[in-house]
Amino acid sequence: MTQPLTVPAGTKIRLADFDARHLEGDWTKKMSRQEISSNTAVSRDLAYRLYAENRRAVLLVLQGMDTAGKDGTIRTVMTGINPQSCQIASFKQPSQLELDHDFLWRIHNAVPRRGNIGIFNRSHYGDVLVVRVHQLVSEAELETRYDRINDFERLLVEGKVTILKCFLHISKEEQRERLQARLDNPDKRWKFSKGDIAERKRWDDYQSAYEQALTRCNTEHAPWHIIPSDRKWYRNMTVSRLLRETLEKLNPKFPPCEEGLEGIVIH
Amino acid sequence: MTQPLTVPAGTKIRLADFDARHLEGDWTKKMSRQEISSNTAVSRDLAYRLYAENRRAVLLVLQGMDTAGKDGTIRTVMTGINPQSCQIASFKQPSQLELDHDFLWRIHNAVPRRGNIGIFNRSHYGDVLVVRVHQLVSEAELETRYDRINDFERLLVEGKVTILKCFLHISKEEQRERLQARLDNPDKRWKFSKGDIAERKRWDDYQSAYEQALTRCNTEHAPWHIIPSDRKWYRNMTVSRLLRETLEKLNPKFPPCEEGLEGIVIH
Repeated sequence: MTQPLTVPAGTKIRLADFDARHLEGDWTKKMSRQEISSNTAVSRDLAYRLYAENRRAVLLVLQGMDTAGKDGTIRTVMTGINPQSCQIASFKQPSQLELDHDFLWRIHNAVPRRGNIGIFNRSHYGDVLVVRVHQLVSEAELETRYDRINDFERLLVEGKVTILKCFLHISKEEQRERLQARLDNPDKRWKFSKGDIAERKRWDDYQSAYEQALTRCNTEHAPWHIIPSDRKWYRNMTVSRLLRETLEKLNPKFPPCEEGLEGIVIH
Repeated sequence: MTQPLTVPAGTKIRLADFDARHLEGDWTKKMSRQEISSNTAVSRDLAYRLYAENRRAVLLVLQGMDTAGKDGTIRTVMTGINPQSCQIASFKQPSQLELDHDFLWRIHNAVPRRGNIGIFNRSHYGDVLVVRVHQLVSEAELETRYDRINDFERLLVEGKVTILKCFLHISKEEQRERLQARLDNPDKRWKFSKGDIAERKRWDDYQSAYEQALTRCNTEHAPWHIIPSDRKWYRNMTVSRLLRETLEKLNPKFPPCEEGLEGIVIH
């Protein structure tokens, strides 16, 4: 059975309709290695041209429930790409200074510059997800945020930033296993907090907040991709392919050289 | 013959005394591959602990003449290190806003946060190098900058940022070959500007500005390392070893876990 990565703008998204273990095609973990390494090799070359060209940028937005694998995805897709042309921003609790501005202020500040690939580890979507689940702002304020996000993303797109939004979709059972594994591994236990259990109790609230965000901010200029992420290798392969395709579509070129460089001999 | 990477603070540094093609020990390019990959593997693990510990930072400062290989060094030493715990800052011509502050203002802003490894691709030393060669500030202003740099670096060190300063030392002949290669390769020619030839004409002025900076800012809290860099593989091997040793000396530890996590079962 086929399962699309994206749906047309305006479609109501129900996460229960998307299988987090879905495989599109006859992929195996073994086959994925070759595919991922080929994707990252192509992306490395294109990222270098994007940097040289210095006219456009790419922004990869990663969202997902705890343990969905944002960090692991970043490690995979960044392999080999010159770290100097990448900017990774991760958004935690806002500071007092950030709270003294509108919610997109700190986001805007972290948008990748021309020539760069930016990655948002969490993003402005936190402001309609965790903020909604914990009722940190009024219903009225929340309601207007979706449109403001769409407008903001259009501003970026018109400023030549291509936005690739990926929701790393995991099942509740997969999260259980991953949290347990984190607890059981002494080298990973430091990452665990009891707060993670409290957040997991709000699983349904989060899923419904995600459905709302994915539905209302799935625009033509910045569509959402729903990445089946219960299998880490399939998640990595899918995101690495989307990044490669995004860069291929941009098809960046080396900039023209200065005039009169032909035949110069350095002394 | 042996050639030290560092000299005691207070020693007058003459670059002519340092051979840019020097090899310390019987290294070959082939052997260096294994060594570099072992250094980066150890550094990757330690960088992860540094990040988890979240108490200290490392700042690698790279300086060198045009084509000395700052970019290539960064690509090598960063291989495999989680890009989320690295911050790379490159300092080009200051903006008007930056010029409206003291010369260390923009530098301070780019210092790596706790848990991170920061890399400066060029640095505050530009403010006593290119600025000196082109006489962009008064002699009196320039003269006080060395002490201010030393004080600033002490501030960072006392704030738990370990500073690893590397001067990538190349010979004038090696630069000639590399600039010519850049001109002759259509995929690299875009990086070449006629200004590079003008800068090369000031080779001796730059060497003397470097000698001054390396001598006056070679402190016990932040010593300079003079990296023989005519051979790219030896340069990469040496910097990757220094980074590994710096991290080993810090010996970062995973932070303590929350109390009462033993035996928790996730539902």
